[in-house]
Amino acid sequence: MKKLVLAYSGGLDTSYCAKYLSEEKGFEVHAVSINTGGFTQEEIDEIESKALKIGAKTYKNVQAVDRFYDKVVKYLIFGNVLKNNTYPLSVSAERIIQAVEIINYAKSIGAEYVAHGSTGAGNDQVRFDMIFQTLAPEIEIITPIRDLKLSRQEEIDYLKSHGVEMSWEKAQYSINRGLWGTSVGGSETLTSHQGLPESAFPSQVEKSEAEKVTLTFEKGELTAVNGKSGSPVENIEALQKLAAPFGIGRDIHVGDTIIGIKGRVGFEAAAPVIILKAHHLLEKHTLTKWQMQHKDYLSNFYGMHLHEGQYLDPAMRNLEAFLTDSQKNVSGEVYVTLQPYRFTLEGIKSDHDLMNASFGAYGEMNKGWTADDAKGFIKITGNQNKIYNHVNGDS
Amino acid sequence: MKKLVLAYSGGLDTSYCAKYLSEEKGFEVHAVSINTGGFTQEEIDEIESKALKIGAKTYKNVQAVDRFYDKVVKYLIFGNVLKNNTYPLSVSAERIIQAVEIINYAKSIGAEYVAHGSTGAGNDQVRFDMIFQTLAPEIEIITPIRDLKLSRQEEIDYLKSHGVEMSWEKAQYSINRGLWGTSVGGSETLTSHQGLPESAFPSQVEKSEAEKVTLTFEKGELTAVNGKSGSPVENIEALQKLAAPFGIGRDIHVGDTIIGIKGRVGFEAAAPVIILKAHHLLEKHTLTKWQMQHKDYLSNFYGMHLHEGQYLDPAMRNLEAFLTDSQKNVSGEVYVTLQPYRFTLEGIKSDHDLMNASFGAYGEMNKGWTADDAKGFIKITGNQNKIYNHVNGDS
Amino acid sequence: MKKLVLAYSGGLDTSYCAKYLSEEKGFEVHAVSINTGGFTQEEIDEIESKALKIGAKTYKNVQAVDRFYDKVVKYLIFGNVLKNNTYPLSVSAERIIQAVEIINYAKSIGAEYVAHGSTGAGNDQVRFDMIFQTLAPEIEIITPIRDLKLSRQEEIDYLKSHGVEMSWEKAQYSINRGLWGTSVGGSETLTSHQGLPESAFPSQVEKSEAEKVTLTFEKGELTAVNGKSGSPVENIEALQKLAAPFGIGRDIHVGDTIIGIKGRVGFEAAAPVIILKAHHLLEKHTLTKWQMQHKDYLSNFYGMHLHEGQYLDPAMRNLEAFLTDSQKNVSGEVYVTLQPYRFTLEGIKSDHDLMNASFGAYGEMNKGWTADDAKGFIKITGNQNKIYNHVNGDS
Amino acid sequence: MKKLVLAYSGGLDTSYCAKYLSEEKGFEVHAVSINTGGFTQEEIDEIESKALKIGAKTYKNVQAVDRFYDKVVKYLIFGNVLKNNTYPLSVSAERIIQAVEIINYAKSIGAEYVAHGSTGAGNDQVRFDMIFQTLAPEIEIITPIRDLKLSRQEEIDYLKSHGVEMSWEKAQYSINRGLWGTSVGGSETLTSHQGLPESAFPSQVEKSEAEKVTLTFEKGELTAVNGKSGSPVENIEALQKLAAPFGIGRDIHVGDTIIGIKGRVGFEAAAPVIILKAHHLLEKHTLTKWQMQHKDYLSNFYGMHLHEGQYLDPAMRNLEAFLTDSQKNVSGEVYVTLQPYRFTLEGIKSDHDLMNASFGAYGEMNKGWTADDAKGFIKITGNQNKIYNHVNGDS
Repeated sequence: MKKLVLAYSGGLDTSYCAKYLSEEKGFEVHAVSINTGGFTQEEIDEIESKALKIGAKTYKNVQAVDRFYDKVVKYLIFGNVLKNNTYPLSVSAERIIQAVEIINYAKSIGAEYVAHGSTGAGNDQVRFDMIFQTLAPEIEIITPIRDLKLSRQEEIDYLKSHGVEMSWEKAQYSINRGLWGTSVGGSETLTSHQGLPESAFPSQVEKSEAEKVTLTFEKGELTAVNGKSGSPVENIEALQKLAAPFGIGRDIHVGDTIIGIKGRVGFEAAAPVIILKAHHLLEKHTLTKWQMQHKDYLSNFYGMHLHEGQYLDPAMRNLEAFLTDSQKNVSGEVYVTLQPYRFTLEGIKSDHDLMNASFGAYGEMNKGWTADDAKGFIKITGNQNKIYNHVNGDS
Repeated sequence: MKKLVLAYSGGLDTSYCAKYLSEEKGFEVHAVSINTGGFTQEEIDEIESKALKIGAKTYKNVQAVDRFYDKVVKYLIFGNVLKNNTYPLSVSAERIIQAVEIINYAKSIGAEYVAHGSTGAGNDQVRFDMIFQTLAPEIEIITPIRDLKLSRQEEIDYLKSHGVEMSWEKAQYSINRGLWGTSVGGSETLTSHQGLPESAFPSQVEKSEAEKVTLTFEKGELTAVNGKSGSPVENIEALQKLAAPFGIGRDIHVGDTIIGIKGRVGFEAAAPVIILKAHHLLEKHTLTKWQMQHKDYLSNFYGMHLHEGQYLDPAMRNLEAFLTDSQKNVSGEVYVTLQPYRFTLEGIKSDHDLMNASFGAYGEMNKGWTADDAKGFIKITGNQNKIYNHVNGDS
Repeated sequence: MKKLVLAYSGGLDTSYCAKYLSEEKGFEVHAVSINTGGFTQEEIDEIESKALKIGAKTYKNVQAVDRFYDKVVKYLIFGNVLKNNTYPLSVSAERIIQAVEIINYAKSIGAEYVAHGSTGAGNDQVRFDMIFQTLAPEIEIITPIRDLKLSRQEEIDYLKSHGVEMSWEKAQYSINRGLWGTSVGGSETLTSHQGLPESAFPSQVEKSEAEKVTLTFEKGELTAVNGKSGSPVENIEALQKLAAPFGIGRDIHVGDTIIGIKGRVGFEAAAPVIILKAHHLLEKHTLTKWQMQHKDYLSNFYGMHLHEGQYLDPAMRNLEAFLTDSQKNVSGEVYVTLQPYRFTLEGIKSDHDLMNASFGAYGEMNKGWTADDAKGFIKITGNQNKIYNHVNGDS
Repeated sequence: MKKLVLAYSGGLDTSYCAKYLSEEKGFEVHAVSINTGGFTQEEIDEIESKALKIGAKTYKNVQAVDRFYDKVVKYLIFGNVLKNNTYPLSVSAERIIQAVEIINYAKSIGAEYVAHGSTGAGNDQVRFDMIFQTLAPEIEIITPIRDLKLSRQEEIDYLKSHGVEMSWEKAQYSINRGLWGTSVGGSETLTSHQGLPESAFPSQVEKSEAEKVTLTFEKGELTAVNGKSGSPVENIEALQKLAAPFGIGRDIHVGDTIIGIKGRVGFEAAAPVIILKAHHLLEKHTLTKWQMQHKDYLSNFYGMHLHEGQYLDPAMRNLEAFLTDSQKNVSGEVYVTLQPYRFTLEGIKSDHDLMNASFGAYGEMNKGWTADDAKGFIKITGNQNKIYNHVNGDS
């Protein structure tokens, strides 16, 4: 029997695929979902029982949250990556690791086929297909949803007619949850002019009193929250628990899809946004001007290329080498105050703080140089503009 | 008598200069201040009377707010420039135009000398000297504060002993007000770990009810606020009036000074921050991916180079040509909601919106291409990674 | 009858298309070729008679060499564009303008179809299709060669069997001639390890005595050769005449195709390479450091994006605005010596030369500053590294 | 007695320093020169005897050619660094390592002072002072030539009057020899319009028959020449021996000095130029498009920052991490033909060659995709331009 691995979420599209591929097309369907931080155990159990009920021969939930952090999230933090200066790439980043894990799973069980439920209109098909094709050119990709273009109703009817009686109500807002944030799509995000209502966001605002949080970074990684050490993943989750009830980190991302059209999606990402901003502040104190300048440029590209599914381009490894090397001294504490809908970075402490009082403090009397030194510096720093004006000046 | 133009603010340092240079050094002192948006008429009158009383022969307040906008602020908006992703360059940007205006004034009255009150520790001396030297190499620069390194008390005593009995109390927070924001320095900003208290900020929060504002842009410039047309400067001021009572646009900037040390300064810039973010959102809808990518990179440099006083580098004109050309279609309305300490961008409307429903809307069924087109696209887009993996893959 | 415009070169592939589309598919075929500098009048006449004989209803040769220069070549010179630091983009650049001209011609005669003879393996199909689809989404694209994948012999047989008896010998080296250089493909360029023999290049070396040439640029454009004024196109052609008999400007380009595979192609481009290098030298004397730095970065992208057929991206217009603005002072003479296989840039003269003796000449005694100024400059320029080492140093 | 380390070259300026500092100023002078590839043993012996005769207490020649390669040259090769697309940074690169070695030597012998013979007009003072100050802020820098501004004649007279009778004829061309090339300054390079005569160059053309050379690279480093393995330094020297008699690698560099003025200098660098071009060609075959794109940008900056003496900026280490990582697959052979005044890169062989015939070869029938795939690719790749034109098109 033809062995097929199906990326299975428990939703209507992939449930349709499970049924259609096993019953109609004669595949032995092995359902898999990749946990990059969005699933509870109950949800996993529910997905499993659904998968098996609908026709999958096996179901596997791959725990990939640590690999997600190590291979992607870590570099997004090192790079302070916010796509279009807004979006922490919550979903884009997840999809990459999911694709890698799915195809590795398929190879590990000797599958000849891999299937996913993406449509032909979006980014995910590109991320999945490109990574599948690159890592396993010998495995064939099957995409019923993209190929058949069925309506929700047609899918429901098909399932019903094949004995699957489940409730497939469409939620008003489509939600994708993960370690690095939750995306929120709704009718408002299909056009350009409206924001999302409060109720659309996964966390509701339950805290009103300001809370202080101390974040500890070592070489760019979050190693403690309020002094409590943990793995970076544990710390992200701990901070998320503290900050989500403030409704922090909500916004709408507008940007270019891989296929050239503009897309719009809401998101909520309390911990990611706080961590990125706190990390960036620590860098402003510990990196030199040109370290920051180059990091900005390269990280911007890193985020764009990742978003576009080009994770396997070896250029990404080169960029990661740069980013890792840049974090050598990005260690210290960042003091944050959380309040409803917003947070404030109060300041930092670091042994590597270049704002060092033993050298001339800015605005105060200078210690490291004299007035004459300053004049000499200015005179020579201005040389090229002076020559230019001397040679080309209008007067 | 030796004619000297003194950049005069009415503060202790430049008052000392006025006295010292006219009485001690025998200069004919022509005091000048450049209004880039920070002065009321009362303040100007007060500065004038002070200047004349202390020993200046003449005083002139140059109205430069429109030139400030045309030559600098406009491009900061086009470029969405926030230094280190935080600071609208409120003071840095002003200083440039002030330097240009001061030296032009000095040339217009035939002065042989120009004086300013900057110390030898900061950025302003660099901006002033470099622009003075470039535009008027024949005019000599005099800087008593930098050269003499007097304490506040020594300056006060000197003035007193020369018959100037004024009150020179040092404010707890040093404030610099202008069209593009107000900077706030205090004891907290001299070290790395503390934020500024609410009371340090120039505007106090007086509004609590959310307010909706519509900003209209034409070719990147703010042409109306809530449908009321005006010059960009008028519109910035109108928006500032609406938004400042919400305490919006406060933060602390940490960054590299021109002289290589790190500096930290608070600021409040309600209108600038809202405009920059609204403008950026409009660009996300109206510019192509590579327009945004290049704008980001170039604007980042533009801000840095401006900050460092390199405004007269012809490279800046080239960058401005790029930025201006990029704004051709950045026209439309942006909908903003103001709330205490924060604002939300709800959405935009634009005839140039590239998120156009007549082409395949993201996430919806695609209109412009088929599933097979998408597969072909992906197959070929992935070619290089596939070849790379084929040639170099580890498996 | 269905009106179709066929991009016609007179070669086997497009001759096959002419016959096949008119006879087999019932199109009214209007053949067109775009002269971007590669055709003599005899060649045009020959192509015309061939086209009409084979079945085209009309033939048109569009003179586009001036538009080629104005829209593309000019900016390649401004940007000193050599793809991968080697290739002047001879063919890539031509194809863009040819595509624009072909589709404009098709629109002007009311054609509903446009055809070209590109295969499915190369860059040209992408350049043609993308520009056709963007500028005329209503015109359908027909590509028999890509679709039918016939061998040369099958095409020849088809033509013969339809009464076209012409000689279609395949030249040993496929040559594409144009204003901006000639490409040369052969069996050697299909693999990585071999160069091209002398005989493969279109110009043979006939001159052995060194010749001096003076090139005059005004605002970045070549306005005279050896003091003889002319249009830039005339000057390029005049220089080509002088330099080609030296065998100058030959090399092999290796680079990425749009479809992700690596390609290799020989070329000869005497005038383009000399002009680019002479122009660059003039810029080194007349532009500031940051003008050059940004030009390098942006021009590199400009060349890549053009090569990939993305000429209609508005980002290209923004880049052209930058480049044009940067040429304000790139005026002067460049002295070149031509010798067999190579040329030497002897030097330049320009009113805008920033290497100006009235300021401190390099290596000689300094005039614009003192030893103490230099010490002050160095002390402060080194501040950040000193602080960094002070804070983080290993000792 | 005050211990001083003097950077000693054996020339007039540093000989003056040796005498002046020991006799006049009471320093215990320890002369040192750093061999970065330019000295023969006879020259070293001669310098030593001179130093001791003139008044140095000790003399030390530090063998630093391997460290020069490991710390700097290696990265210049990885980055294909040619300043302003011309100059391999022969002298700039040497000075960095010389400065580091000198100050390390000074620290190792417990010197309180370090002296060099640079003037106040050039780059070298900046490189020396900045690196000295950063690595040893406690050691005082002494620069008699910069401070006293003596003419050659005054220096000669002084030495004569102090019993030093040596011949100090000024060579017509000032030459600086090192592993990474030889710089040549003369009266021609002080102005903009003239080239250097053949006789000015250190190597004269002695070979006329073409010679074939095979260069072997492993991870970006030159590991063999004509199949003969050796250390990279040995290989550079071996290639230099082969190529110098052809007069290859001569040119004139025009560029910005650190102090803002333009400078011009001739150079001859046969091995460096051949290696850089051969290495670049190998990269074109083995790196992906975006690896090359980013390498270009970053290497350009690396060269500029190095040239400006900013070697100790930690940003340089981050860039080196990127460059090193990028070389993983830059292994293979490059075939070069040497001829008088020029060389030709014939081709390469590499196991990592991405121009791989098992995937669709460019221009030939495609194997990896179909005509329909190509059409789909093009359709979607063109989406954004099409939407842009649809929304904003003029027609």
